[in-house]
Amino acid sequence: MLQLWHCHDARSFRALWALEELGLDYDLRMLPFPPRALRKEYMAENPLGTVPLLIDGDTRMTESAAIPHYLSTVHGGGRLARAPGEAEYGAYLNWLHHGEATLTFPQTLYLRYATLEPEERRQPQVAEDYRKWFLARLRLAEQTLADGREYLLTGGFSNADISVGYAIQLALALRMRDDLPPNCLAWFDRLSARDGFTRAQAAQRAGMEAEGLKPIF
Amino acid sequence: MLQLWHCHDARSFRALWALEELGLDYDLRMLPFPPRALRKEYMAENPLGTVPLLIDGDTRMTESAAIPHYLSTVHGGGRLARAPGEAEYGAYLNWLHHGEATLTFPQTLYLRYATLEPEERRQPQVAEDYRKWFLARLRLAEQTLADGREYLLTGGFSNADISVGYAIQLALALRMRDDLPPNCLAWFDRLSARDGFTRAQAAQRAGMEAEGLKPIF
Repeated sequence: MLQLWHCHDARSFRALWALEELGLDYDLRMLPFPPRALRKEYMAENPLGTVPLLIDGDTRMTESAAIPHYLSTVHGGGRLARAPGEAEYGAYLNWLHHGEATLTFPQTLYLRYATLEPEERRQPQVAEDYRKWFLARLRLAEQTLADGREYLLTGGFSNADISVGYAIQLALALRMRDDLPPNCLAWFDRLSARDGFTRAQAAQRAGMEAEGLKPIF
Repeated sequence: MLQLWHCHDARSFRALWALEELGLDYDLRMLPFPPRALRKEYMAENPLGTVPLLIDGDTRMTESAAIPHYLSTVHGGGRLARAPGEAEYGAYLNWLHHGEATLTFPQTLYLRYATLEPEERRQPQVAEDYRKWFLARLRLAEQTLADGREYLLTGGFSNADISVGYAIQLALALRMRDDLPPNCLAWFDRLSARDGFTRAQAAQRAGMEAEGLKPIF
């Protein structure tokens, strides 16, 4: 069975959300955050100590934006993905990478230097540099959604929404609601009302309770 | 014809390298770095002001690790990619994302706060935090290469090598040679000796000369 290692509302939520959207069976392993400090034995599973870790037989994956595409194309009959030859294939691949590489990484700078680091290591300038950076990079999604479309691709909900949507979810957890542009906010309302999203939230909540863990945010 | 917007040795080199490895025809547009400050009219092409930008008819892509996979699967008959059903498909996708999201972004923190920012905005603590972060995250590639394989996948050279290999190229430009682990260094020697890599280097050099531009590094 597919096994997913995950921390509450961390970027590994992308993988959990995709599992639920695709209706796949999986074994969810919840970890305290950050696992490399609080669950050192996890380093034997993933030497980076990061989440997610998806295990599927001999396949082990650690990149949150790669896993939804893998699940779709290997276990989901291509659902939620786009294939070569389809008009939105390039846009689909671009959004997959964009969500993590361009949007989530700057957010983690804000998270780290505005909140997680001990007081004497905080860096208000860097937190602010990357808060602004993140918001400026949202322009591509905001412009794309400005034409009234329901999801990032005109063909309907896809892993593109999972990858980029998680960045909005994280921004809300980081209390940036007032900074977020209107089309992105309205789109995230649609995403978070989906059954797959709701089931993923319920699954992580149940997992946290079973392990006696507290949310990061 | 495929059109690529690129800055010398920037992450858009991944796209240029893939174009050369696949032997595709393309129109190369060189920009000064950073284009959003030095070539403001480029914002009309890419509202983020970032490189790369790949234009292929109606398809516009801005993510350097997505483009090689797009080129392989749309214009390269699948060469340099792996497909669902192949044993290394999950590893392949993971490396594609890993090269940029996990490895290159921390390097850009070092680049920014140790070198690009004006003196009064430099942040030695942050530059050092992310130099170490980058080096720690190289563990996955170093361990994978430790079994004597020639490339990241046992099946031979792929876009995985292009995505992760660029991170080593950038680390060398950032003068981190003495910090890099031995298997990664030996592997990058193999990568940079490839005809595709050499041709991509020659193409950007010719483009820089034609435009009268100077290297970033």
